[in-house]
Amino acid sequence: MSDDHQIDEFRQQALDYHAYPTPGKIEIALTTPADSAKDLALAYSPGVAEPVREIAQNAENVYKYTAKGNMVAVISNGTAILGLGNLGPLASKPVMEGKALLFKRFAGLDSIDIEVKHRTIDEFVDTVANISDTFGGINLEDIKAPDCFEIERRLIERCDVPVFHDDQHGTAIVTAAGMLNAIELQGKELSEATIVCLGAGAAATACMELLIKCGAMREKIYMLDRKGVIHTRREGLNEYKQMFANNTDKRTLEDVIEGADLFLGVSGPDLLPAEALKLMAEKPVVFACSNPDPEIKPELAHEVRDDLIMGTGRSDYPNQVNNVLCFPFIFRGALDVRASEINDAMKLAAVEAIRQIAKEPVPQDVLDAAGVSALSFSKDYIIPKPMDPRLLPRVARAVAVAAVESGVARIEMPENYMTE
Amino acid sequence: MSDDHQIDEFRQQALDYHAYPTPGKIEIALTTPADSAKDLALAYSPGVAEPVREIAQNAENVYKYTAKGNMVAVISNGTAILGLGNLGPLASKPVMEGKALLFKRFAGLDSIDIEVKHRTIDEFVDTVANISDTFGGINLEDIKAPDCFEIERRLIERCDVPVFHDDQHGTAIVTAAGMLNAIELQGKELSEATIVCLGAGAAATACMELLIKCGAMREKIYMLDRKGVIHTRREGLNEYKQMFANNTDKRTLEDVIEGADLFLGVSGPDLLPAEALKLMAEKPVVFACSNPDPEIKPELAHEVRDDLIMGTGRSDYPNQVNNVLCFPFIFRGALDVRASEINDAMKLAAVEAIRQIAKEPVPQDVLDAAGVSALSFSKDYIIPKPMDPRLLPRVARAVAVAAVESGVARIEMPENYMTE
Repeated sequence: MSDDHQIDEFRQQALDYHAYPTPGKIEIALTTPADSAKDLALAYSPGVAEPVREIAQNAENVYKYTAKGNMVAVISNGTAILGLGNLGPLASKPVMEGKALLFKRFAGLDSIDIEVKHRTIDEFVDTVANISDTFGGINLEDIKAPDCFEIERRLIERCDVPVFHDDQHGTAIVTAAGMLNAIELQGKELSEATIVCLGAGAAATACMELLIKCGAMREKIYMLDRKGVIHTRREGLNEYKQMFANNTDKRTLEDVIEGADLFLGVSGPDLLPAEALKLMAEKPVVFACSNPDPEIKPELAHEVRDDLIMGTGRSDYPNQVNNVLCFPFIFRGALDVRASEINDAMKLAAVEAIRQIAKEPVPQDVLDAAGVSALSFSKDYIIPKPMDPRLLPRVARAVAVAAVESGVARIEMPENYMTE
Repeated sequence: MSDDHQIDEFRQQALDYHAYPTPGKIEIALTTPADSAKDLALAYSPGVAEPVREIAQNAENVYKYTAKGNMVAVISNGTAILGLGNLGPLASKPVMEGKALLFKRFAGLDSIDIEVKHRTIDEFVDTVANISDTFGGINLEDIKAPDCFEIERRLIERCDVPVFHDDQHGTAIVTAAGMLNAIELQGKELSEATIVCLGAGAAATACMELLIKCGAMREKIYMLDRKGVIHTRREGLNEYKQMFANNTDKRTLEDVIEGADLFLGVSGPDLLPAEALKLMAEKPVVFACSNPDPEIKPELAHEVRDDLIMGTGRSDYPNQVNNVLCFPFIFRGALDVRASEINDAMKLAAVEAIRQIAKEPVPQDVLDAAGVSALSFSKDYIIPKPMDPRLLPRVARAVAVAAVESGVARIEMPENYMTE
């Protein structure tokens, strides 16, 4: 069977998956009986007046009598869809429904997609803020940089519920968990590591910010965009790139990669040449996260270096950096203690919880699903597998505890919350 | 058992219904498998890129690969919640979730509530228009008059999908169906009827507009607001009330009710005195739709007049005027032929379909549910019961046919659509 044939077959399977049994992937289901006239008198007029009055008297009752507290909106304007670019809100709908599916599947959170068309950033922010009370939390998705930074900042200010741009922070949390474990295995210290970040978009910026919060030194980070190294003498940098402008004479990838300990690629296919990889310090960590084609093919990377720990965005290589390790669970934990925001303490708690799972013995069902007989903390297993059932209780609990301890939880943690 | 005790018991049942088994009444369910890594590769990255590309190439494909085509948003700002008034968007949430439940239960439509906070009408319209592509149709709900008229008009212009304010048009369609049948039973002609409409809000205005489209004469309609008869010499009338300003010297309910054939009350409890009812023409039709307490109690009305046909908003009296007879099915028909709007032809088709059902023999399961041994077209049965299973196929089909014939359908009617 040819590669082309396999691609066509997968393509058709993907289209069929979305077209059948009904168009799309999600539907609404009822949680209460609605069969008799009595049921309907309770669900709608006149019975529904009772919870309405309770909420009018005390807004917190909306969590007691409506679906709000378990509902996450997945909101996009379609300006940066997967690796496909700006195809507009309508074309982003399958992705947003997919995200909703993952929220339900992995964390039992009800989630609905909302696609927003708008002219200005102001209008996008107003639109989302105006509907935000409907939901328990808002997951922003596939919004292009640098708009996404301002949008998220302003929505966090305006909304009463947690707002989280997963392409930034979900990616950053999983990347940080993997990188910290990799660095530990390589016997290095993050605070002493020289870091090269190829790519300067939403994910790159968020990853570097979080690594700094984990101990990395800003002056040891070299971020590159399409024009090369972002440095202090470059003009026309936006405020987000300015945060990473390095006071250096180095200008190219080759200049900065020499002696570097960590490489993060969130750019495009094959942008890390084998010759550049050779220049890295001993025992390097390389995360080539461009999807589906990484910055350097793992086979080639391992051919060039045998002292390497490598991660990619792909499920068919070891160490897949996959946001689904984080976003369902960070929202689960945040919503379960009704956190007003998802703050740094909660993000760092998620990083640690994910790291720790990778260091512990792997349950048999995870091994079976991965089709392997054993997995243990090593250069080929630095982050948990996406279907690991320990992620939900461990990450959600860590996030909830951090929310309570950092003072953003609005209710106490439920007794025995997520204890296994 | 005292009345107070019964009220407390119903109140507690209504609150419990909303609180258990989980808060609220609706949840998200998955329509596709999401168990294996392969499933997830089809549902999300990388497979989801395929339907994204298809939609980017041809926007119509969004109906093939996403839930849009079966999804109705129930949108409110909470400014006119049931009979409770302006309690704000958050307090309206149980009502909107209830409406979503009814859409699913009665017509298999997936429906999600969106509560909107806003400062101006412009901002409300922008917000809803900006998210409208997410859905196959938009049901506006519980928005105060006269704002609702401008909001609906502007959203119909701006949105690519049908926009329908149910408090206006759903009420009008069911009211018209009942009134036309009642008038027929009384042996009168709508074009010759004198009509008194007590109340001048969204429902009143829409009911009178639709009755005019059914043959009523505008000059024979007397509409009253809190200040009395709306007449051509009154100052400060908004443009919507001006449409019903009657060139008359009559000023009070007593003035206009004398000799009137039809009374519609959409105002408040006990506002139609028995003495006024006595003044109506012979064989009058009285719809006292204020809920839960009608403009005149049916017992009292029948005591005063034995030549009366009466309807109310209550399920415990005959002839309940209930929007659920219409809104699930008019959206079902509209969405199934992808109508660009819900136009007058479709509304009138719904009126006729509902009327006709009341004239035909009633299925046994409807009799059982209603707890009666027989029902036939008569003064105590002028409109179908809410749980009548004929409503879905008959109303949806009539609406779809009207959409096709009036040129607003974007796809052909499915073969054998809704044929029993």
